Amino acid sequence: MRDHAPNSWESRADTHSLYGFTDLPSVHERGAVVLTHGEGPYVVDVHGRRFLDANSGLWNMVAGFDHPGLIAAAKAQYDRFPGYHAFFGRMSDQTVMLSEKLVEVSPFDRGRVFYTNSGSEANDTMVKILWFLHGAEGKPERRKILTRWNGYHGVTAVSASMTGKPYNSVFGLPLPGFIHLTCPHYWREGREGETEAEFTRRMAQELEDTIAREGADTIAGFFAEPVMGAGGVIPPSEGYFQAIQPILKKHGIPLIADEVITGFGRTGNLWGSQTYDFMPDAIISSKNITAGFFPMGAVILGPDLADRVQAAAEAIEEFPHGFTASGHPVGCAIALKAIDVVMNEGLLDNVRALTPRFQEGLRRLAQKSNIGEWRGKGLMGALEAVRDKATKTPFESRLSVSERIANTCTDLGLICRPLGQAIVLCPPFIITGTQMDEMFEKLDRALDKVFAEVA
Amino acid sequence: MRDHAPNSWESRADTHSLYGFTDLPSVHERGAVVLTHGEGPYVVDVHGRRFLDANSGLWNMVAGFDHPGLIAAAKAQYDRFPGYHAFFGRMSDQTVMLSEKLVEVSPFDRGRVFYTNSGSEANDTMVKILWFLHGAEGKPERRKILTRWNGYHGVTAVSASMTGKPYNSVFGLPLPGFIHLTCPHYWREGREGETEAEFTRRMAQELEDTIAREGADTIAGFFAEPVMGAGGVIPPSEGYFQAIQPILKKHGIPLIADEVITGFGRTGNLWGSQTYDFMPDAIISSKNITAGFFPMGAVILGPDLADRVQAAAEAIEEFPHGFTASGHPVGCAIALKAIDVVMNEGLLDNVRALTPRFQEGLRRLAQKSNIGEWRGKGLMGALEAVRDKATKTPFESRLSVSERIANTCTDLGLICRPLGQAIVLCPPFIITGTQMDEMFEKLDRALDKVFAEVA
Repeated sequence: MRDHAPNSWESRADTHSLYGFTDLPSVHERGAVVLTHGEGPYVVDVHGRRFLDANSGLWNMVAGFDHPGLIAAAKAQYDRFPGYHAFFGRMSDQTVMLSEKLVEVSPFDRGRVFYTNSGSEANDTMVKILWFLHGAEGKPERRKILTRWNGYHGVTAVSASMTGKPYNSVFGLPLPGFIHLTCPHYWREGREGETEAEFTRRMAQELEDTIAREGADTIAGFFAEPVMGAGGVIPPSEGYFQAIQPILKKHGIPLIADEVITGFGRTGNLWGSQTYDFMPDAIISSKNITAGFFPMGAVILGPDLADRVQAAAEAIEEFPHGFTASGHPVGCAIALKAIDVVMNEGLLDNVRALTPRFQEGLRRLAQKSNIGEWRGKGLMGALEAVRDKATKTPFESRLSVSERIANTCTDLGLICRPLGQAIVLCPPFIITGTQMDEMFEKLDRALDKVFAEVA
Repeated sequence: MRDHAPNSWESRADTHSLYGFTDLPSVHERGAVVLTHGEGPYVVDVHGRRFLDANSGLWNMVAGFDHPGLIAAAKAQYDRFPGYHAFFGRMSDQTVMLSEKLVEVSPFDRGRVFYTNSGSEANDTMVKILWFLHGAEGKPERRKILTRWNGYHGVTAVSASMTGKPYNSVFGLPLPGFIHLTCPHYWREGREGETEAEFTRRMAQELEDTIAREGADTIAGFFAEPVMGAGGVIPPSEGYFQAIQPILKKHGIPLIADEVITGFGRTGNLWGSQTYDFMPDAIISSKNITAGFFPMGAVILGPDLADRVQAAAEAIEEFPHGFTASGHPVGCAIALKAIDVVMNEGLLDNVRALTPRFQEGLRRLAQKSNIGEWRGKGLMGALEAVRDKATKTPFESRLSVSERIANTCTDLGLICRPLGQAIVLCPPFIITGTQMDEMFEKLDRALDKVFAEVA
């Protein structure tokens, strides 16, 4: 363990933090990284070290770490009205305008918006909405939630139960009634000799079989990220959503698109569901909705669910749910600006323009003998490290290969994220071609260094 | 239903909102109240109507709606570093400083802090921490959560399960394993001829019996607000915490103080647990922590839990939990300022100075024949409306007495909150004596008007 002076930032962080989602051996060995400010896609720590954050913070700081327009919008709203809620039929003017804007830019003709403070709360809220709706419609037994392995939906006890990651077992999760289907990752889950089309059909058949086994009348909804994010950037197999949606429709099971990561441009369209050409029944949004400048989540109900949920609420005269900071005026003012910045100030255009260069960079690094595949969509991508490319055999987990790659990158001034044995890249939408070259050049060096040590 | 022009703020709010915690008949009849700005403890709507917000937003805007120091702190941090997370051993300098400050001002000698975006997430997180801890210590069957009827702990599926309010049945909640004890409200729950001391002993005996019935080895923790807030401002009966804490200790059940409302001054001390002279094992904080200027929650673990949870995390090299905006630099900068404002700029002093005047006002209005009791602590109070004072018989619920009182107040330019058949007052800590007189004068008129209609 590295020794830090008692009053160092590293010691102060260690003494008072319960670190979340942190590799503790790494932080003990290397010390916490305490950041003071940012410049475009770079962040700077207390020692003046500068890092290109290829992680966009946590996928979310898509306009970088000092966007003048967003800062100005935040400051103007603090001057105007620095806080209110959205209970009791009261809310700020910013909240009204943002709901209008969200429905306008959504794939829906019309709909209703419910605000939360995070994607976790938004998914948790959507589960409660479904339980409420089915109960009101005389089907209180419709409670089971379908998601997929490697799907990430958050960390409240319910959204963690939706999340298909093995680490949740340390909490005794998932709760009963949360069912995880196979991850539609053809490279890893496809069988010997199975074509991608056959794989997709098998995924659809598994869904059909699961519904038959559990009983359609026990299932509340199906949640899916258009591209899995924290599962390791996993695009669905070809035709996946087209194969599963008719099955869900047939059984009256709402399809909820968790667009916390894919929403607002990450895949090259405003919504990931547009990129994959399907129409969900509701959208879960967070992260990019404020470009990370404010905690916010939103449930956007499409027309059918909006009408049914509203009718259910009218019947008991209230929808008894809400968070204190739901629809906070500052968050709403920032979101209005963030949506404008993404759509009208060139960010979405830049995602589209740079996607070929990004994917070419991934493709090039994937030629290394210890990279099993590259994958991605738009400006989200991953490189999967393997011991053996032909057999797709992973490295021994005790080697912590992806953590070593990420730590080596940090030493080189690049932040990227280890996820399983993959390295994930999701740069801010403001990144330039030159900065992207810097990102790949540093990652290239880190990969070579670590693979030389472990291969 | 009142007709609103299609482009009116009221129509725009109606069209796109799934209203939460909103009496829908009221909003249909009266229209949404769309707010543009605030001035001290007042808020102003799009029509220029001005309301004294005796609700402090939702208990949280304790420094009012335009506090210059808080606005400046927010703006300065937006200029400096407008967003980051606290994963992977990285966090902002503001986050480190706030954790240090929170432990310093907590009742604990030392401890560890985990950030969330809301009180709901903080309670949900604490449940996950307890499940994680007990599992790591070889007691994975310690999962049940004890709370009280009328306790309010949030709205995620798990924190709503902790909340002891009947409306949660519309979601099919509580989940199994969430057990609600009797609300320690002597006026309502005390039996004929029972003294308050006897009532408190009965509450303690119920806890002892519940633990015996369920098995101590199945119970993860006990959560309690020092004063129940959204249950209708219910202080515990005399000696309550002194009676229950030894029982919890004997059975190794952590006592978690939900200080989302009581924390940072509301009861006249920094913490409600200080006001009621008990030492919890952990504190749940939110709301006042940022004076409502930013969504934030925090779990503050005391020394024993901090050490045990840290050891459990070290054993698996990670605590796999965290929210994207956990420890957001802007929220942390605002919280640092808010704590300073409450402690050092006269807000806590003002709570103490005005408490006698506040309680005298409540006592005076409680002389009305349709007020059953006044209750409260510090600057939180409630008046309970009754049909019959002697028998404590409530009004018929179809009369919606408290909603009518609150709506009448709104017409008079005063925002207060109906909770059950009580009217709750929790003014901002910056309120002046004159403004407090205005509050009581308007409420007095509203009570007389409504009681004349229904009595």
